[in-house]
Amino acid sequence: MRRIMLTVAYDGTDFHGWQVQPGVRTVEGELNKCLSELLGAEIQVIGASRTDAGVHAMGNLAVFDTEGNIPAEKFAYALNCKLPSDVKVQKSEEVAEDFHPRKCNSIKTYEYHIDCGEFPMPINGRYAYYTYHNPDVELMREAAKYIVGEHDFKSFCSVHTQAETTVRTVYSIDVEQKGREIVIRVSGSGFLYNMVRIIAGTLLDAGMGKFAPSKVAWMIEQCDRTVAGPTLPPEGLRLCGIEIKG
Amino acid sequence: MRRIMLTVAYDGTDFHGWQVQPGVRTVEGELNKCLSELLGAEIQVIGASRTDAGVHAMGNLAVFDTEGNIPAEKFAYALNCKLPSDVKVQKSEEVAEDFHPRKCNSIKTYEYHIDCGEFPMPINGRYAYYTYHNPDVELMREAAKYIVGEHDFKSFCSVHTQAETTVRTVYSIDVEQKGREIVIRVSGSGFLYNMVRIIAGTLLDAGMGKFAPSKVAWMIEQCDRTVAGPTLPPEGLRLCGIEIKG
Repeated sequence: MRRIMLTVAYDGTDFHGWQVQPGVRTVEGELNKCLSELLGAEIQVIGASRTDAGVHAMGNLAVFDTEGNIPAEKFAYALNCKLPSDVKVQKSEEVAEDFHPRKCNSIKTYEYHIDCGEFPMPINGRYAYYTYHNPDVELMREAAKYIVGEHDFKSFCSVHTQAETTVRTVYSIDVEQKGREIVIRVSGSGFLYNMVRIIAGTLLDAGMGKFAPSKVAWMIEQCDRTVAGPTLPPEGLRLCGIEIKG
Repeated sequence: MRRIMLTVAYDGTDFHGWQVQPGVRTVEGELNKCLSELLGAEIQVIGASRTDAGVHAMGNLAVFDTEGNIPAEKFAYALNCKLPSDVKVQKSEEVAEDFHPRKCNSIKTYEYHIDCGEFPMPINGRYAYYTYHNPDVELMREAAKYIVGEHDFKSFCSVHTQAETTVRTVYSIDVEQKGREIVIRVSGSGFLYNMVRIIAGTLLDAGMGKFAPSKVAWMIEQCDRTVAGPTLPPEGLRLCGIEIKG
């Protein structure tokens, strides 16, 4: 038995998220279907990040087991022939038999894209959240500093979370202006449900001057979802990649 | 009578190009419909660049005439309430009554985006041409130098052209690598039918080492479409903007 890891990229627009749900199109469902066809047996992948409906990915991870003798690196080619154009495997490789993509140490990197302008720009709308506000990027950067580090992020987590603990470590946040777009790039050991979208909404509010950047420290301390900023919509979010540590 | 100029942005994916054609969805058709509804009279815009099916724009131009008293800058807001999400006006302003967007001196800037990687990246596929080749950007830049200037571009023009002359002036071409993407940015006084897509195809071939960069000078001299590179597909092309001169 060998365990194969796939690096999976997708446009989340037409998916009801990663996780298999009856009657709807999901990324996990497409992978299971194509792998099962390819191997002639029922295959169920285990994903690293169960992204929400509408969220995009450039490098999510998934593993599955096989007794066949297809070389690990060939799965990317074979699967991409079967997969639809909005989900494509970027890499396939063999990993340890007991490797579990949600029970390992890793650094996950997400980006949230905000398109700012007087009017929406159609070619940006699929992969960015549009606002006619013109936030101050320096204020956003100042606010971001309070989020970096190990904290209880209960204020930055959907109340629907099932997580055992709401303590997480954010390694870095960079806020960059690229033409009309503001890109918030966040790396951390793991993220709570909706956490990156709530961080983005809070930084955007800070950039619009709704509160002083230092108030973010107070928001974290409260451990109360209602004090942080709004959950921005999924289309602005993309999972850039997951780096497995040790 | 006043003449109003619109700066128009669109995602070309679901349009059969700019120009009105019976029975299909076009950008010009959407603008005519919304303007006619807004003004209660039949309005037909005149566009600057009649982009092909699938080509995107951030700043095409169109003019129309009105006897009403809506302030020029308000048309952008009023039209955007009616227009679908894949076409949005970025600006509306009054111009001289005899201003014609195809009969004026202007600088048009286009970009052609090429996504390079071992496998397609779904979130790039809508706005870039994918290739698994890994072209040499330096060779593309060298080849591009021969295109800059005033030349007879007959070799770089679809045989279906109706242009009176095939002489055009290219002011600049920049080839930039941005992560996986190669962006070819071309500015000129005007472009022949498919000219930017043929330039992109020729530079890509040069970057893949199919011929020496200097061969582009010979290609121009031949005045023969069959000697230049292929016409790359429309999704990689976007009209960035049109600067009106004097």
